[in-house]
This record gives sequence, structure tokens and C-alpha cells, in this order.
Amino acid sequence: MIKQFFSITDTDSSSKARTGTLELPHGSIETPAFMPVGTNGTVKALHHTTVENIGYRLILANTYHLYLRPGLDVIRHYGSLHDFSSWEHNILTDSGGFQIFSLADFRKIQPGGVTFRSHVDGSYHELTPEKVVDAQMVFNSDIAMCLDVCTPPEIPEKKAKEAMDITHAWAERSISHRLKHPEYTGHLFGIIQGNFYPELRKESAKKISSLDFPGIAIGGLSVGEDFPVFQDMLSHTVEFVPQNRPLYVMGIGTPDYILEAVENGIDLFDCVFATRTARNGAVFTKEGMINLKKAYNTYEKGPIDAGCTCTACKIYSRGYLRHLFKTNEILGLMLAAEHNLAFLHSFIRDIRTSIREGKFLEFKRSFLERYAGKA
Amino acid sequence: MIKQFFSITDTDSSSKARTGTLELPHGSIETPAFMPVGTNGTVKALHHTTVENIGYRLILANTYHLYLRPGLDVIRHYGSLHDFSSWEHNILTDSGGFQIFSLADFRKIQPGGVTFRSHVDGSYHELTPEKVVDAQMVFNSDIAMCLDVCTPPEIPEKKAKEAMDITHAWAERSISHRLKHPEYTGHLFGIIQGNFYPELRKESAKKISSLDFPGIAIGGLSVGEDFPVFQDMLSHTVEFVPQNRPLYVMGIGTPDYILEAVENGIDLFDCVFATRTARNGAVFTKEGMINLKKAYNTYEKGPIDAGCTCTACKIYSRGYLRHLFKTNEILGLMLAAEHNLAFLHSFIRDIRTSIREGKFLEFKRSFLERYAGKA
Repeated sequence: MIKQFFSITDTDSSSKARTGTLELPHGSIETPAFMPVGTNGTVKALHHTTVENIGYRLILANTYHLYLRPGLDVIRHYGSLHDFSSWEHNILTDSGGFQIFSLADFRKIQPGGVTFRSHVDGSYHELTPEKVVDAQMVFNSDIAMCLDVCTPPEIPEKKAKEAMDITHAWAERSISHRLKHPEYTGHLFGIIQGNFYPELRKESAKKISSLDFPGIAIGGLSVGEDFPVFQDMLSHTVEFVPQNRPLYVMGIGTPDYILEAVENGIDLFDCVFATRTARNGAVFTKEGMINLKKAYNTYEKGPIDAGCTCTACKIYSRGYLRHLFKTNEILGLMLAAEHNLAFLHSFIRDIRTSIREGKFLEFKRSFLERYAGKA
Repeated sequence: MIKQFFSITDTDSSSKARTGTLELPHGSIETPAFMPVGTNGTVKALHHTTVENIGYRLILANTYHLYLRPGLDVIRHYGSLHDFSSWEHNILTDSGGFQIFSLADFRKIQPGGVTFRSHVDGSYHELTPEKVVDAQMVFNSDIAMCLDVCTPPEIPEKKAKEAMDITHAWAERSISHRLKHPEYTGHLFGIIQGNFYPELRKESAKKISSLDFPGIAIGGLSVGEDFPVFQDMLSHTVEFVPQNRPLYVMGIGTPDYILEAVENGIDLFDCVFATRTARNGAVFTKEGMINLKKAYNTYEKGPIDAGCTCTACKIYSRGYLRHLFKTNEILGLMLAAEHNLAFLHSFIRDIRTSIREGKFLEFKRSFLERYAGKA
């Protein structure tokens, strides 16, 4: 049974772009929506209230990280991840599949589950699809993700198919296991894999769509491939996914990728890029990204981006922000991270408006013209 | 001419403790007052508004650091250090004497001035008392400090006297040079030195007090000496300082040292301790300091310090704060730094109240009993 928690409110006539509403246990979310990444239950360098004041009501946290630290017993003691972290709004938790693939020192994937060594202390752990569902029930995640098998680009098709087949088997086991938690009010999403093989992508899209998931994620993209490859693979994949459920592309968070995803009917996306790159001084502007550390900002009295209402742009000059980065002051990171999340929030609000007004492709073109102009 | 910008409002009958008001160009300050350290024109890991909301209206910044980065030309371009940093309240700038002593890779002190190598890029610089006054005029510091010669404990008396004599000569040159800036509305303070030699301390206290400084600082204490040595040297020094001017002990910021200073009639103090130690997870409580990283906090649902109104204590459990530190999350530093400054602010407000009510020594005794009880 698919829960009717997602409603599409407007659709673009020239593309698959749409706006919608997700009714989640901790409040409703307008889509398309970007989710800031709060790996450990906190968006890096930001107060919860800052994330909230920007307007975000759904953040992403990570099962792999939280399972290792502080561990499930601790979160259970506090009641839920919301109670533990004091973030009162929605949380989507990633399953950890990607982190086991990218962070763990060692991993062995078998049909039963995955054994890996913690990147924190080298200890060995085993996760199964069932344990990953259970962990997310402990978190009381508003959206939970199935354990999947991520693969790097350019592996042989045979290897990609093996990983996909395990992902599919795990998806079915995850659904069965979720049914043992009738008290759970959140939503378990399936994940499409298939590497960069069109036939596998098609097979995975059809398979995951055939299962009783209330929402569907597209995984394994934005892992280093060129932009045209991302475009092709995304549009190819969504062809085989019914459009009535919320669709989530994992790991994208720059304006060009977000616009591409929205055009393909995607409703949700997340990425560490905005906050991670901010910690290096790189910030979004409507004319492209700039790096605050650069000497040309030294005497610049203007804000990062005129019209932006974040703390950095309201109060501080580019020159002072540069000084904060050059002297390694934490306030620099705090302000740049807030700016980048505020930029993306208002960017996506503008996307939603453009869809409602039937002008999405026009918005996309004019935004990218200006953005690429000086990038 | 000594400006009448300082008024004593209450005095304690059993000690030298007093409350007062400092009328500074960017607003008035109730004393005794602790000044958070914002070396580079920003209190580490805190928004300006957080520092302001705690109640601070006077922070300390550092001439040595700001002279090296961003440099005087940059700050002049923005108008003042206030304009550059967007901190709208008062700023005291230390002269850099202590930093040249503690940070620079190389220093050569001569009667004319000091040559040193930058700890940032190894470049050579020369500072004179006049240049240091000029720099602080560029900052438009509300309180400026004379360049002095700091010495480590346990040097021979002859060396200590040489350093003191240079400090005195520089104090006179600083005053003469300050008179060339009639437009300057801030206040230049002199600094007493003399190492740990009682005769030199006495000589320096008398000499600096004899000069036309609107306020007087006691330097060269809290540099690693035992607490009883600090106590002796402080009470010995203040004997020779008239009590009608604001007195400032440089570099102290823990409750025991602050109480000792207040008892000796000190009005101002600063220290990096509160914010630096917070970055390691160490936080003040009324029962002494605790370290948030310790395992005993894991399941602790209560706040750092009951009754504290900082963000950490209002919103977060000790267990979550521990998690933030164990996962190296910047939010942990932000919250701990805010807590420590909020703790000191309310501690010093309580000190002022106790002085007004004629109960300072009672407050001191009962505070330290509780604070030392579990420290």
C-alpha cells in the first residue's frame, strides 16, 4: 500500500518539472526541495535555528555515521534522532550504503549483508537490510532509505549487475521488514542503481518502481561522471519510473544539476557540496561561484550576493569575510555555510515559483546564462 | 589631563572591590567587566550577535595580529576596526607587546622599538611605540594600549629592570604621540610591568601612575606563575596605584583569578581561556569545570549548567553536546564557546550585584566553595 502523502500541485507543460507537497510526520515540505546534509545529526557549522530560519524543514542525516557514533543505544535512550539532536523538523536518513562504499576501510558485500571496518576506530561491523531498517526506526526518520550497493563508474557490466541484483533483493527484504514496524509513521524509499549501463538502469528503475515504496530514489549518479553522462543517465532512468511518487536524486546540490533534475521531474535532492565548499571559502552568487579567499575581495565593501538575506550578506563585507578565511576564523565557515544554504533555498523557491507560473524552462535558461557568465 | 570617563558607583567596605561605569565612545560599560577576546576582530566561533546578546559591549582585539592581517591599509579603507568587522560596540586593542613576546619567531627589542618576524609568513617588521599608537588610531580603538616589553618568569632582576625601563620610556613616548591625535576620542592606557620583583613592580606602578593615563593596566601576570604568587604580586602592585582610574589586569579569565582581581579593585580583565578551552570541550559549571567529551555525559539529558540561558543550555543535552565533540562537529565549539562566555557574563553580573549589596566577600566564599567542590 502506497501512502498518499505526496501530492503534485503544479506541472510544467514543457518538461517533467512539477511542484508538490510532502506530508511528513514532522510537518509538510514543498517540493522540489533541497535537503541540507547533517551527517551526524547537525548541519556543519550551523545552529539548528539558522537552518530553520533559512526555511529548511527537512535535513538529511546518515545511518552509517550515527550507527557508529553515538550508536543506536544512545539515540534510543533519548527517544529518537529528533529528540537526541533537538532538531524538531523532518529528517531523512540515508541508509549508509554510499558511506560503506566511500568511507569504510574495508567492505565485503554478500547477499546476506555487508561487513565493513569503521573509518573511525577500525572496528568490524555487519549491516543487513533489516538492521538498517531497524536503525532508522530507532531514529524515527521521517524518510528512511533501503540499504543498497553503490558501485564506482567504469566497472564491468557483470559486476554492476551483481551489485544491482543484491540491491533489488535487499529492497524486497527491506519492505518486508518495514511491515513488521506498523507503528512507524515515516516512509521507506527504495533506491535505483545500475551503474552507468542503460539496460541495468532501466531494469532497476522498473524493478524498484514495481515494489511498494512510497518514494523512489535514484542512486549511483553524481559520483564523478561528466555532466552530459549524468543528464543522459538521469533522463533515461526516469523514463521507467511512474511520476506519481516523490522522486529523489541522491548527492546533487549545485544549480546546474538541480535544474537538470527538476526538469526531469525530480522532487528531492541533497548534497554536501554547499556546506563543504563553504568551509573552503567558495560561495554561490547569482553570477557563479566566487572564492572569498581571493585577493580581489580585500577592499570589497559589498556583500557576497546583493539581495541575499543571510547573515553574511546582511552584515558583512566580502573584505571582512576574506579576512576571516585568511585568519582561519570559524566565523568565516559559519557565515559562508549559512550563505550557501540560503542561496540554494531561495534558488529552489524561485524554481517552484517558475513552475507554478509555467516559466520553468525560461527561468532555467536565464538563471544559467547569468550564473555561467562569470563562473 | 585625565578624562573623567570613569565613575565609581559602589565600593565594598571589606575590600578594594568596586563597581563603576566606563563611558566609552561606543557606549557605556558597567564594571567590573570581562572582555571576550576577539584577536582578529571576531570572537572565535561566535556570531557578533551572539556576543552582543549575551550582553557584552566591549571586546578585545589585537594590534599585532591585525597589523599583520589584514594590515592597516585595509582597515583604514573601511574606516575603522568597527566598520571593518561590523562590531558596533566598544573595542579595546592590546598593543601587541605580549604577542611579539609569545608568538613571533624572532624579536629584537631596542630602546627605539622592536624588530620581529611575523609568525604568519616570516616577514620582518619593526614596531615602535608611536607606530602602535598610530595603528590603534586607525582602528579607532575605544581603549588603546601602550607598547610594552613583556618578560617571562624567572629572568634575572637586571633583565627585568631593563625591560621595565624600556616599557616606561615607551609609555612616555606613547603619551606624547597620542597628543598628536586630538581627534581621537578613545583612551590610551599605560601598562605596569616589573616581572615578579616586588621592588620593580612598585617602581613601575608608581611610574605608570604618575603619567597622564586615563586608565592603567597591570601586565606580565598570569604568565604561568602559581596562584599565590599571582595573589601576592597583584595585591603588592595595586598598593601603589591610585584607585580613581579604571584598572585592568591583562590575561585573566577564570572565576578564581577574577574574584581575586575584583577584591583588589580591578575593573577590567580579558582572557582567551573561556573560548579556547571551550574548543576542547571544557565548560564552566557552578560546580566547577567539566569536559563534555567525557563518557559520563553520554546518557545525560540535562544541560551543561542548570539555570544558564545560553543556547547550549536552553536547547541541548550534555549527551548531544558530547556527540558533537566526539564527531568533531563545529557546532560543538560554537555552543561551548557561547556557554563559557555566558557563564562568565552572568558570573560577573553576580559579582557586581554582590558589591552593590555589600556582600562581595560572602559571594566570593560561597561561589568558590561550590565551584571548587567538584572541580
